[in-house]
Amino acid sequence: MTSVSIIGGSGYGGGELLRLLLSHPHGEVKQVTSRSHLGEYVYQVHPNLRKRTQLKFSDPVALEPVDILFLAQPHGQAQHHIDEHAKLAPKIIDLAADFRLRDAGFYEQWYGEKHAAPEWLSKFVYGLPELHRAELASASYVSGVGCNATASNLALLPLVKAGLLDFSSPVIIEIKVGSSESGAEGNQGSHHAERANVIRTFSAFGHRHTAEVIQEMCVPAERVSLTMTAVDLVRGVLATVHAKVKQGVTTKDLWKAYRAVASENPFVRVVKEQRGIYRVPEPKILAGTNYADLGFELDESNGHVVSMCAIDNLMKGAAGSAVQCMNLVMGWEETTGLEFMGLHPI
Amino acid sequence: MTSVSIIGGSGYGGGELLRLLLSHPHGEVKQVTSRSHLGEYVYQVHPNLRKRTQLKFSDPVALEPVDILFLAQPHGQAQHHIDEHAKLAPKIIDLAADFRLRDAGFYEQWYGEKHAAPEWLSKFVYGLPELHRAELASASYVSGVGCNATASNLALLPLVKAGLLDFSSPVIIEIKVGSSESGAEGNQGSHHAERANVIRTFSAFGHRHTAEVIQEMCVPAERVSLTMTAVDLVRGVLATVHAKVKQGVTTKDLWKAYRAVASENPFVRVVKEQRGIYRVPEPKILAGTNYADLGFELDESNGHVVSMCAIDNLMKGAAGSAVQCMNLVMGWEETTGLEFMGLHPI
Amino acid sequence: MTSVSIIGGSGYGGGELLRLLLSHPHGEVKQVTSRSHLGEYVYQVHPNLRKRTQLKFSDPVALEPVDILFLAQPHGQAQHHIDEHAKLAPKIIDLAADFRLRDAGFYEQWYGEKHAAPEWLSKFVYGLPELHRAELASASYVSGVGCNATASNLALLPLVKAGLLDFSSPVIIEIKVGSSESGAEGNQGSHHAERANVIRTFSAFGHRHTAEVIQEMCVPAERVSLTMTAVDLVRGVLATVHAKVKQGVTTKDLWKAYRAVASENPFVRVVKEQRGIYRVPEPKILAGTNYADLGFELDESNGHVVSMCAIDNLMKGAAGSAVQCMNLVMGWEETTGLEFMGLHPI
Amino acid sequence: MTSVSIIGGSGYGGGELLRLLLSHPHGEVKQVTSRSHLGEYVYQVHPNLRKRTQLKFSDPVALEPVDILFLAQPHGQAQHHIDEHAKLAPKIIDLAADFRLRDAGFYEQWYGEKHAAPEWLSKFVYGLPELHRAELASASYVSGVGCNATASNLALLPLVKAGLLDFSSPVIIEIKVGSSESGAEGNQGSHHAERANVIRTFSAFGHRHTAEVIQEMCVPAERVSLTMTAVDLVRGVLATVHAKVKQGVTTKDLWKAYRAVASENPFVRVVKEQRGIYRVPEPKILAGTNYADLGFELDESNGHVVSMCAIDNLMKGAAGSAVQCMNLVMGWEETTGLEFMGLHPI
Repeated sequence: MTSVSIIGGSGYGGGELLRLLLSHPHGEVKQVTSRSHLGEYVYQVHPNLRKRTQLKFSDPVALEPVDILFLAQPHGQAQHHIDEHAKLAPKIIDLAADFRLRDAGFYEQWYGEKHAAPEWLSKFVYGLPELHRAELASASYVSGVGCNATASNLALLPLVKAGLLDFSSPVIIEIKVGSSESGAEGNQGSHHAERANVIRTFSAFGHRHTAEVIQEMCVPAERVSLTMTAVDLVRGVLATVHAKVKQGVTTKDLWKAYRAVASENPFVRVVKEQRGIYRVPEPKILAGTNYADLGFELDESNGHVVSMCAIDNLMKGAAGSAVQCMNLVMGWEETTGLEFMGLHPI
Repeated sequence: MTSVSIIGGSGYGGGELLRLLLSHPHGEVKQVTSRSHLGEYVYQVHPNLRKRTQLKFSDPVALEPVDILFLAQPHGQAQHHIDEHAKLAPKIIDLAADFRLRDAGFYEQWYGEKHAAPEWLSKFVYGLPELHRAELASASYVSGVGCNATASNLALLPLVKAGLLDFSSPVIIEIKVGSSESGAEGNQGSHHAERANVIRTFSAFGHRHTAEVIQEMCVPAERVSLTMTAVDLVRGVLATVHAKVKQGVTTKDLWKAYRAVASENPFVRVVKEQRGIYRVPEPKILAGTNYADLGFELDESNGHVVSMCAIDNLMKGAAGSAVQCMNLVMGWEETTGLEFMGLHPI
Repeated sequence: MTSVSIIGGSGYGGGELLRLLLSHPHGEVKQVTSRSHLGEYVYQVHPNLRKRTQLKFSDPVALEPVDILFLAQPHGQAQHHIDEHAKLAPKIIDLAADFRLRDAGFYEQWYGEKHAAPEWLSKFVYGLPELHRAELASASYVSGVGCNATASNLALLPLVKAGLLDFSSPVIIEIKVGSSESGAEGNQGSHHAERANVIRTFSAFGHRHTAEVIQEMCVPAERVSLTMTAVDLVRGVLATVHAKVKQGVTTKDLWKAYRAVASENPFVRVVKEQRGIYRVPEPKILAGTNYADLGFELDESNGHVVSMCAIDNLMKGAAGSAVQCMNLVMGWEETTGLEFMGLHPI
Repeated sequence: MTSVSIIGGSGYGGGELLRLLLSHPHGEVKQVTSRSHLGEYVYQVHPNLRKRTQLKFSDPVALEPVDILFLAQPHGQAQHHIDEHAKLAPKIIDLAADFRLRDAGFYEQWYGEKHAAPEWLSKFVYGLPELHRAELASASYVSGVGCNATASNLALLPLVKAGLLDFSSPVIIEIKVGSSESGAEGNQGSHHAERANVIRTFSAFGHRHTAEVIQEMCVPAERVSLTMTAVDLVRGVLATVHAKVKQGVTTKDLWKAYRAVASENPFVRVVKEQRGIYRVPEPKILAGTNYADLGFELDESNGHVVSMCAIDNLMKGAAGSAVQCMNLVMGWEETTGLEFMGLHPI
C-alpha cells in the first residue's frame, strides 16, 4: 500500500479527498490534519465517514513522512511551506491555487501579491489530466485546478483542440455555481436564509480562475471573461461558453471534435439528446462523480457556438481530479477509486 | 368601480392577476373563467385567495360585458377569438404572446405559423410601460410581455436609450429562470425530483422572446441571442446581458444612464452596492413585487459591459405589467395596486 | 399620524416590522436602531425596502420619545432596559421572549436564569390577539410571541376552547421550521451547504417555546412536548399536534370548533379540502401574510386527533402579530396594514 | 457471474437497482424492461448511467430465464404475474408492496382489495435484513419493504428488541419525506412550482406502510400511527417516533440497546453527538448509501422517548435493501456492492 496524508482535512475539498482515499484500493491514509478540529474524529466533521474510519484530525506539525502528500488548505498557505512539505514526501498534490500558474508575474497580476516560492512554479504540472496526461505520468508535483476554470477549460477543449474558434470575437463564459464553492467557512452571504433561492451574479469580471483559462487554453486575455452567478444548489458548476467559430464550421465538425475528446478521456461524456428530460449537461446528476459532461449548440447562420460543461466542483473541480492525477503519477489505472456513477434522481 | 373579467384564471398569470385585482381600489372583478376548474372556488386553485373572495370559476362562453377584459390564456388562443372578445369590452389587456409583435411576417418567422388575426396586430400597444408609457395612455388594446423579453429589454434600456452600445459586437443575454415559467401545467421535466437542484441550459438559441428584444430594442437580429437556463427557484428571472459599449464610454456614463431610467420609472431601481449581501439585482427579493432591479459592471479596458435585470416573471414579467398598463390606460396613478414591497428574507 | 420607533431593526423580525410599518396608514416610523449597521441605509440590510424609505439605522442611545416603541432585539436585552424604554413611549410592543411569561419562577425554570425585571411581567399582555383580544384593547405593554408557540397554540385553540381534549394523554407537537428562525446572525449549522436539503430534528424536548404553550393553553406541563425539525425553507412553520379527544367526540364536533375560531378571528382560516393540491395548511403560501391556517384529521376509532397550524414565523409568529396588537391597542381596525394575501405559486 | 434481470426499470426504484447491479462484482444484468421506454438506452432515462452501460430497455414479454429476477414495477402488478415470473428464475426479489404482508386478510384490510395470489404470501420473506437475516439466507422469494415502514421499523428496532416500550401508550411516528417517494410519474402536486418549499402533511393517518410496522414490530394496531409530511428534498426519509418507555428505563439502557443493534448490523449507525453540525440522524448525507442512521432522546421525567431513523428511501428503503437481500440469499458478503459512503456536503 502507498501511504498518503492530507494537510487541511476539515474543509470540503479535504473531506472529499478523504472519502475517495478511504475507498481507494492502493492508498492508505496515514494522517489528516486540522488545526481547528484537532483531536476530533474526522466523522464528526464529515458525517458520511462514520463507521468507515476511526481516524482523528492530527496536528500539522506532527506529520510523518509518506509516499504522497495532499495539500487541501485554503489558498495562500502551501507556497509558504512547500520546502518543508517536500521533505515529507516525494510526491505532492496540491488542491489550492498556489501552484496553478506557471509564471510568477502572471500570478502577481491575478492574485495581487508576489508569489512566496516562485522557483517552485515550474516544478508543478497543472493537475487536469485531460490537458496534461502525459506530463503527469512523470510528475512529482501536481497543482490543483480551479473548479470554475475546469468547467471552462473542458467546455473549450474540443473547440480549441480542433482549432475551430475565431479568437477575434469575445469568449464569454457564464458560470453558475453551488454554495459549496464558498468553502466550509462560508461568507457573509452564505446563511441559508440569504443564500437559498438566489440567482446572484456576484462577479461580472476578474475572477481569479480566469487566469487558468488564459494559461491553459491560450485564449487571448483581453477576449475572455468569466461571469459567476450563484444559484440554489450545494454541489455543481455549469459553464456555458459563448464564442464564435471560424467561418464554415458546421455542427458536424463540432460533433467530431466533441466525440474525439470524449473518446480520449474516460471521464468526459457528450450529452446532446433529442428526447427525454436530460438532453444537456447538468451538474446535479454528477454529484460525487468525476465526470465532466459536455454539450453544445451551434447557430450556423452566424457562427455563435454555445458550449457547456457540467462538473461537481468538489470532484472533477478539486478532489476527483487530484485522485485522477495521483493514479497517473503512480502509474495506476486512471479511473481507480473514481467509479461512483452518481445518482438519479437527486 | 370599473368592472373587469379574466379569461383563463386558473393559470399562474391569471392567478397573479386576480390577486392584484382583488386588492385594487378601482377595479371590481366580475368573472374569472376556467374550463378545467369550472365551478370550483378560485381559492381551491389559488390557495392564497382563501377568505379573500368567494368567486368561482365560470364558463368562458357565459362572459358578460365589462369595462376591461384581461386575457390570461395559453399562447395561441386569443388571436382566434379577438373579435368576440372585443365585443365584450372596450379595453382589452392580453398577457399571452398573441399580440406582442407588430409585424405578421415577423410573427410567422418566430412562431412558425401564420397569425390568425394579423389585422389586429397594429391595434395593440406593447404592454411595457417603461417603453410605451405615452402610447398606453390612449390605448384600447394592450399586449402582454414575455417575461424573459422584459428582463432583457429592461437590462438593455439604459444602454440603448443613452446610445452607449456598439451593435457591431454580439449581444449575448444569459437568462436564468424559475419553474413557474413553465406554467401551471408544467412539462416532462417539471417533476420536483427532476427539476429540483437543476442548472439546465434548456435553450441555447431561438427562444421566441428574442423577437420582442429585436422589435423593442432595435438590436440587430443576427447579433442578439437569449440563452435560457433553468435553476432551482419558483419565481424569478435574472437576465445577464453581455455587450460592448462604444469606445470611450465610462462607468460614470453608465451610472448616469441607469439613474436616468430609474428616476423616470417608478418600478425601476438601480442596485449596485459596495457592501452587504445584496449588492446586485436578485430576483428572490422581488417575489410578488412589480420592481425591475438593474445593475451593471463595465470593464473599461475592453468595453465589455455586463448589465443585469432581475424581475418576478409573474409580476413585472406578466400580471404586474398588465395591471400597470391598466392603470395607465384608465388614467389612474401608475403604481396603484402594485405597492407590495417584497420580502426579506425569503 | 402616530409616531413609532424600532429598537433592533437589522434583524429579521425588525426588518419585517419595518416593512409593515412603512405601509401602515396610521403609523410613521421615526427611528430604527442598529448598533452593527449604524449609519447605513436600512435598504442596504433589507433590500426589499429600496426606493421605499431613505431611513438610516440610528444609535439606540439617541432615541427620541414616540407614541409606540417596538422592541425587536435578541432575547434577554429588553428586560435590562425596560425602565428606560418606558420613559420614551407610553406604549411598548416587544417581539422578544423577555416578557412572554407571567411568572418569574416559571421564567427561571425555562430560561435558566433569573428574570431581570420580574415586576414588569404582570404589566405585559401576551401578544396573541386570538387569545387576548379584549385585554389588548386596553394594554400599554404587549409581549412578543414565540413563533413555534404560536403555531402550537393556534393548532390547539379550537380543541382547547371547545373542551374537546383528553389531557390524560400526551400532547405531542411536531414542528417543522425554516431557516429564518435562527435569526439574521445564523449559527454553526446555517451555512447553506450544510443547511440546504436538511431534515434535522435539532430539539427533541425542552424547547423554550413550550413554556408559552403550557401557560396559554393550560396543557399539563408533563404531558406536552415540542419537537423541532429544521427543513429546507426560509420562512414558515408547521405545527402538527397529536393529541387525544374525549370519548365520543366526532369529526363534526371538530368542524364546528375550528369554524368557530376561524369566524371569530380575521387571520384564521380552516383548510381542509377534498381535492386539489392545497388540501391542508401549508406555510409556503403564507409567506408575508398574517394568516394562520388550521386543519385537522380525527381517527374516530381511537380518538387520535391531528391538528395542524401553518404560519409565517416572521409574520403571525412575530412582526405580523405585533402589528395586529398595535392595531388593537390603538383602537384601529385589526387587519390594518396586514392585507397582503400571499403568493401562489411560490 | 450470476445473471439478473429487472422488470420495470424506468422507475426510480428500478433505476437505483440498475445502478447498484451494474457495479456489483457478482451480478450481470441481462435485461431491463420498460414498456414506456422500449428500445431507448437506459441512460436516456437514468442519465447517471451514461458511458457505463449500453443496455436498452427491452419488452417484458421477451424476458429470458435468469438466476435472479428483480421486480420493480408499480404496486399491484407483480401479484398478477408471479406464476409466470417464477418460471423464469429460481430467485425473485420484489421491490413493490405485493408480497410484504403475510396475511391475505390483513392485506385486504390495508389495500382495500383482495390479494390476487394469496397462496404466495407465505413463500416470501420480508426483505429487511435487520429483521430477517437468518431466514433470508435460505429464501427463494423476497418481498420489498416500504420506505416509510423501514425508517419506522428501524427507529423502533432497538426499543422493541430490548423490550423497552410501554405499548399501552400511543406510538406516534412522524415521517418527513422527499419528492422521489411519489415515483417517477409523480402526481398532481409534484410540479416543482407547487412542490418546492413545501411542508405538507399529506397523510395524517392510514398510510399503507403502517401495516408493515404492525406486522414486523408487533405494535398494537390501534396504538400506532404514521403521519406523513412532504418537505423540499428529493431523496430521504426521516422517521421521528414518539413513544413511552417502561417505568425505570434510563438513557443508559437506550444507549445499550441502540449500540447493540448497530453492532449487529453493518448498515446501522448510531448518531448522537454533543458537538458539530451533524448531531442527529439526517437523510441528506445518506443519499446513495444503504445506511440507516439512528438517534434518540429520552425525557426521563416522564418516559417520553423520541427515536429517529434516517434513510435514503430509494436505497435502504428500496433498492439498497433489495441488493442486501440478494447478497444474503446468494451467500455473498452482505455489504457487497453497497459500499458507497455518501457525500458531504450535499
